[in-house]
Amino acid sequence: MHHLALIGIAIATPDETSRAHGAQRQGLLTKPTGALGRLEELSLWACAVQGTCPPSAFTRARVVIFAGDHGIARTAMTSAYPPEVTAQMVLNFVRGGAAANVLAELTGASVRVVDISVDADPSYAVDAPDAVAHRVVRSSGSIDREPAISLDQAVAAFAVGRQVADQEIDSGADLLIAGDMGIGNTTPASTLIGVLCAVDAQTVTGRGTGIDQETWERKRNAVGAAMVRGQEFRDDPLALLACVGGADFAAMSGFLIQASVRGVPVILDGTVSCACALVVNAITDEAKAWWRAGHLSTEQAQHLALSHLGLEPIVDLGLRLGEGTGALVALPILQAAIATLANMATFEQAGVSDKDAS
Amino acid sequence: MHHLALIGIAIATPDETSRAHGAQRQGLLTKPTGALGRLEELSLWACAVQGTCPPSAFTRARVVIFAGDHGIARTAMTSAYPPEVTAQMVLNFVRGGAAANVLAELTGASVRVVDISVDADPSYAVDAPDAVAHRVVRSSGSIDREPAISLDQAVAAFAVGRQVADQEIDSGADLLIAGDMGIGNTTPASTLIGVLCAVDAQTVTGRGTGIDQETWERKRNAVGAAMVRGQEFRDDPLALLACVGGADFAAMSGFLIQASVRGVPVILDGTVSCACALVVNAITDEAKAWWRAGHLSTEQAQHLALSHLGLEPIVDLGLRLGEGTGALVALPILQAAIATLANMATFEQAGVSDKDAS
Repeated sequence: MHHLALIGIAIATPDETSRAHGAQRQGLLTKPTGALGRLEELSLWACAVQGTCPPSAFTRARVVIFAGDHGIARTAMTSAYPPEVTAQMVLNFVRGGAAANVLAELTGASVRVVDISVDADPSYAVDAPDAVAHRVVRSSGSIDREPAISLDQAVAAFAVGRQVADQEIDSGADLLIAGDMGIGNTTPASTLIGVLCAVDAQTVTGRGTGIDQETWERKRNAVGAAMVRGQEFRDDPLALLACVGGADFAAMSGFLIQASVRGVPVILDGTVSCACALVVNAITDEAKAWWRAGHLSTEQAQHLALSHLGLEPIVDLGLRLGEGTGALVALPILQAAIATLANMATFEQAGVSDKDAS
Repeated sequence: MHHLALIGIAIATPDETSRAHGAQRQGLLTKPTGALGRLEELSLWACAVQGTCPPSAFTRARVVIFAGDHGIARTAMTSAYPPEVTAQMVLNFVRGGAAANVLAELTGASVRVVDISVDADPSYAVDAPDAVAHRVVRSSGSIDREPAISLDQAVAAFAVGRQVADQEIDSGADLLIAGDMGIGNTTPASTLIGVLCAVDAQTVTGRGTGIDQETWERKRNAVGAAMVRGQEFRDDPLALLACVGGADFAAMSGFLIQASVRGVPVILDGTVSCACALVVNAITDEAKAWWRAGHLSTEQAQHLALSHLGLEPIVDLGLRLGEGTGALVALPILQAAIATLANMATFEQAGVSDKDAS
């Protein structure tokens, strides 16, 4: 059963008329039909989500990084890095030193980090109070043995995510990317994907930040135990997030659903982002019309999630960093798609003979 | 035997010390080792070809489009478009309306078009005299039955390509892309790839601009006949270009080799660009150290060429347009690779715990 918090969520509808105009315009441009391959499909999607043809470049792309810790990283040591890194990385995002910051700057996007459930005294961010203003809980639980968070906390975190999306859209964001930061977070991500795609722990457990065989076995066992615990909530997305996700996952899910309520497009990122996309898709399969998959990560679980969603990644570069980096690397390709549809000359404008005229 | 025109060509050597410094720096950045996947490899290549670490963004990327017609397009009608389109497209490039122009503008690159062998009276470009200033011949021949050009013309076109590369590098280009324009040009490209990779006509003949089955069969037969003619020049690259390539192919080959003589990096594009890269590789296998493959086109022949060269494409977006578009779409990813290596914070700078410190 769906929770009360989900009642009244109405997803917007992309504009199929603009998409059709885009397809028509593609046929007039000075190139063989279909010669721009995937760029053509992306350009039509841009028409549909912008509700106009030709589409415009995205000028206010915004990455929101949801940061949270996970008990499993301490109890089962499923990561190559200590949990302290999550809070340290929050500050790195604030100061602009992380990969997501560098890639955002390059692509004209900007980055916001939101501590949803970091396992540190909030004073760590004394110089960046905004980053900790939305915290729901100090760390989620160890999902192999206990709920990640309570259902009330899941509802609260989901609402925070929706609120953050509203803030960003009200501030002018025209494209949203949900990034993740959290040592151990591919363990709940793999669990959610395993449950929602009905795939076993062995298959969905990946190498995360680059773990050795022994750590991988602990991680697989943790995912297996968590999947057993989560199974009963397969059809209750918020309860599933509470049981085996975490506050950061609930917030990111709320963020993703609210983008589609508001009619703002999203580029999905890696394993965590795609796990949340699957959760949202379990709430309503209308939301995914607003998404494109940025990249194929090295995690098998992410491939399964994308395949389940029917989304084809734009790039495949072996990234496994999260933070929104895979979406940011794909963003220039989306912009390229838009620019070609918007700015290329037509056969008529250029005085070029079309195929049919030969 | 190699022709006299090839004597004295000395390829520069990428800087392995800078590459090693790049690898060292990658290990210090605030991310798990290897988490940026292909971006890390590209960043090290940028160090090596720029001879410095950290590398800088490419700010003067230049696309040179070599335009030429091919008799085979008239005699065997191997294309979906009439040959007149080549000259029309030269003007479209001059006026900025083609896909390559739009993508170049988006990525901070610029475009030059050089009519090497277009089948039109030079007066077609009366408003763009620079575009026709380097013409070697009016159309190359029909390679199923006659030489594309004479050996002297091949030598002249090769020299023009080298000269154009020198002009661009002397004007400050820091990255070069060789684009192609020519109705019917995937027929000689497929032939060159077939001969140099020792693969049959059936395998190397693709759909080019999007031809129907009947046209494809004519094209395959033309490639087959041309491969028989070209076979004897397998070990004589300039003679091979004369026999079954064309003046545009000879010029592009000269351009590619001169970039590596001058130590300037290149992003390869589609089937034509990769066919010329194979020819250059037959002259010297040192040149390819200066190249990265921009994209995987839809043409099987291009995949074979890349595989023969040992180059992994950066993107796979189903493009089949040529003009340098596949390289231009990949350029932002190379820039992303450079920016992450150059601008990310190190663990020490950010106060983030490294794996080894845990």
